Amino acid sequence: MYKKRIDTTINVGLLGAGTIGRGVINLLRENALTIAQKAGTHIKLKTVLEKDPILVKELTDEGYIVTQEINDIIKDPEISIVVELIGRVEPARSFMAKAIENGKHVITANKDVIAVHGHELLEMAALKHADVMFEASVGGGIPIIRPLKQCLAGNNIQAVMGIVNGTTNYMLGRMIEENLDYDSALKESQEKGYAEKDPTADVGGMDAARKIAILASIAFNTRVALEDVFVEGIQTVALQDIKYAAELGYAVKLLAIAKYLPEHGIDVRVHPTFLPEDHPLANVKGVFNAVFITGDYVGDVMFYGQGAGRRATASAVCGDIIDVARNIVNAGSGRILCTCFDEKPICSHDIVETPFYTRMLVTDKPGVLAAIAAAFGNNGVSLRTVLQKSTIGAYAELVVITHKVCYKNLSQAIQSLKDLPAVAKICTAIRVEDNKFA
Amino acid sequence: MYKKRIDTTINVGLLGAGTIGRGVINLLRENALTIAQKAGTHIKLKTVLEKDPILVKELTDEGYIVTQEINDIIKDPEISIVVELIGRVEPARSFMAKAIENGKHVITANKDVIAVHGHELLEMAALKHADVMFEASVGGGIPIIRPLKQCLAGNNIQAVMGIVNGTTNYMLGRMIEENLDYDSALKESQEKGYAEKDPTADVGGMDAARKIAILASIAFNTRVALEDVFVEGIQTVALQDIKYAAELGYAVKLLAIAKYLPEHGIDVRVHPTFLPEDHPLANVKGVFNAVFITGDYVGDVMFYGQGAGRRATASAVCGDIIDVARNIVNAGSGRILCTCFDEKPICSHDIVETPFYTRMLVTDKPGVLAAIAAAFGNNGVSLRTVLQKSTIGAYAELVVITHKVCYKNLSQAIQSLKDLPAVAKICTAIRVEDNKFA
Repeated sequence: MYKKRIDTTINVGLLGAGTIGRGVINLLRENALTIAQKAGTHIKLKTVLEKDPILVKELTDEGYIVTQEINDIIKDPEISIVVELIGRVEPARSFMAKAIENGKHVITANKDVIAVHGHELLEMAALKHADVMFEASVGGGIPIIRPLKQCLAGNNIQAVMGIVNGTTNYMLGRMIEENLDYDSALKESQEKGYAEKDPTADVGGMDAARKIAILASIAFNTRVALEDVFVEGIQTVALQDIKYAAELGYAVKLLAIAKYLPEHGIDVRVHPTFLPEDHPLANVKGVFNAVFITGDYVGDVMFYGQGAGRRATASAVCGDIIDVARNIVNAGSGRILCTCFDEKPICSHDIVETPFYTRMLVTDKPGVLAAIAAAFGNNGVSLRTVLQKSTIGAYAELVVITHKVCYKNLSQAIQSLKDLPAVAKICTAIRVEDNKFA
Repeated sequence: MYKKRIDTTINVGLLGAGTIGRGVINLLRENALTIAQKAGTHIKLKTVLEKDPILVKELTDEGYIVTQEINDIIKDPEISIVVELIGRVEPARSFMAKAIENGKHVITANKDVIAVHGHELLEMAALKHADVMFEASVGGGIPIIRPLKQCLAGNNIQAVMGIVNGTTNYMLGRMIEENLDYDSALKESQEKGYAEKDPTADVGGMDAARKIAILASIAFNTRVALEDVFVEGIQTVALQDIKYAAELGYAVKLLAIAKYLPEHGIDVRVHPTFLPEDHPLANVKGVFNAVFITGDYVGDVMFYGQGAGRRATASAVCGDIIDVARNIVNAGSGRILCTCFDEKPICSHDIVETPFYTRMLVTDKPGVLAAIAAAFGNNGVSLRTVLQKSTIGAYAELVVITHKVCYKNLSQAIQSLKDLPAVAKICTAIRVEDNKFA
């Protein structure tokens, strides 16, 4: 089946020609011939919504229609596919909603909108037999949404664990590789353009929280809202913690985790995590992302690649464009929309059980260890490892790893520890993800 | 969009209820409710082609129609989807062809048929607007065919590298972990059921060759035939080689590689490979598989998981079943079939350039090294590393790593070395995959 004669054209309207938008424009142009063969139709970018005067001139020179009026795209009967790459919630959400109302298929890379309003858009699309695709909203160029919705559809998914924020993964890596403290690692990431001037969404975990809300909704066939996600950032992770982790055979990663606990519901959270160094996710370095999925039949699978960037994200967006075009050509639009047919409860974070690593400063006197052990034990927390590390001034640094304990008990134990005169400071408490722990 | 009322049923006919077949039967039954919601229709296994009397009784007891007559399935107007899990080429190929002729959609896990006859089946399916899906034919449960055909469709793929044979990956791992020689590792794999009694297809590389022929055809949009693949097995890899590799910072893996060289065509091969230990594929342990893909936009992505086994393979087959069912429900069948719209040449293996590792036994006398270096140099092979290792009897073991050299020159150099009186034996020559080499 060699080269086909292609005599139809599907027109695309693009909202926003910033970083990712430019990637999509370039890809559609550079790879136009192979894309037409794969889609069975030419795919032509017709109109771009953009107001930045430099970009407007650039795009006009390249022969695209440029507009500042959304109706020029969503009311244009020649345009079938609207690609939203404006970012943030508004006006992106309203534009997508209007596009669907007007019978357009919609593709977006917008995790902010999909995490919060995805179900609304998908429900609107169902009424119109329109496609809504958002492969680029999680994991940049990594195929992950479509594999979950299609390839793994036979499975009951048990867990999803991901490194879905490149900035923090880069920072944590640089800390251990270059002996940097948190602030230096952040500064370096900002200088390299990996972290934004206001890095809160990345380091605070909200970026990862949006992505795991999206993945968990798909994995468990139920709506997981952003506010369902328990979130802790990496701001409290110190260089010492990463060094102790390495000593104990762990890498420290900001993980986004969603597990289905049949008796309790969905456990969904983002936090720094001690991960055994032989876990496939522990070897994900630099700004790379990876998502590790466990299903009842497939077992463990992992998807790895660039989680951000112009070209990688454009790859995901264009994969969606080609798929939507194939649906148009074959009259199969709307074949996969909302898969949240279930209503599973969300599990309270208080009852989620993990082992914990805790580092604290204590006075170096006889009886102190016994008092600390008692504070843990009285709150139902049993200890697996206790290490006395370096002496810092008048204090000894104590590193503890607990057995599996529910968060509520750990919180209470930490409160009791804080009340002990011998405990000067609880420096960090970091969850451990390790199947070897009972 | 909560639970839907499902009032249609799509019937499936299954050819072969062996290992994978049983996995599919179980999965379809256990996860029936969620599958119906995802597919938008009930999916019911109606009839099974099977002659093993024990299985026939089992299946009959479970309520399935069991037959030894293929027409009972492919002529049954109630059956829309035929799942082929007989294995080998015939009668599997003919059965699938007849099923398509009779308007059935076909799903298979059969790499033997797809690698050699896939294009014929896809062309027949195109005429009938039928689906032919074969996600399970490469990488077992790992989503790889669909991500390549859909998610990465915007890319020009530059390279595909995979660990696609679990048996050999397990054996190579056990050799270094447990200090086993090749024969002991093979014996252990056979005892554990990872290797067959006749292990030739696995250790000789033909299993991997079939899989890379399939992947390369999809990746490069052109037909790559099985006989286009240059194949070397792992039989010549000795424990020493793996140890020296580790010493030099490499893991030894049986890699299936396909690269597009714009000036020469498609370079496609299977052979043991020295891979830098920080490469994501180097960390793929045990019977796990992984496929590493490089595209012009997406950069590097990797897909990792179980490449074989009843449950993992059933996951892939059922993902296909659900997808085919969605196409039937949405009248979009046949939307993605053969993507070989290009006719790219296959590059002769003689001109493929890689660095080589070579281990040889030489007499331990002055002047020998100079003679060896000359034998390489006279054939245009320049050396990057020369290590004299242990003395074995009257001989010294010499380990050499070359710069990038084309296979033809390396072969000639090895011939010249064999003619040297000082060279007692060329033990192994293994390709090195390392971007650090010029």
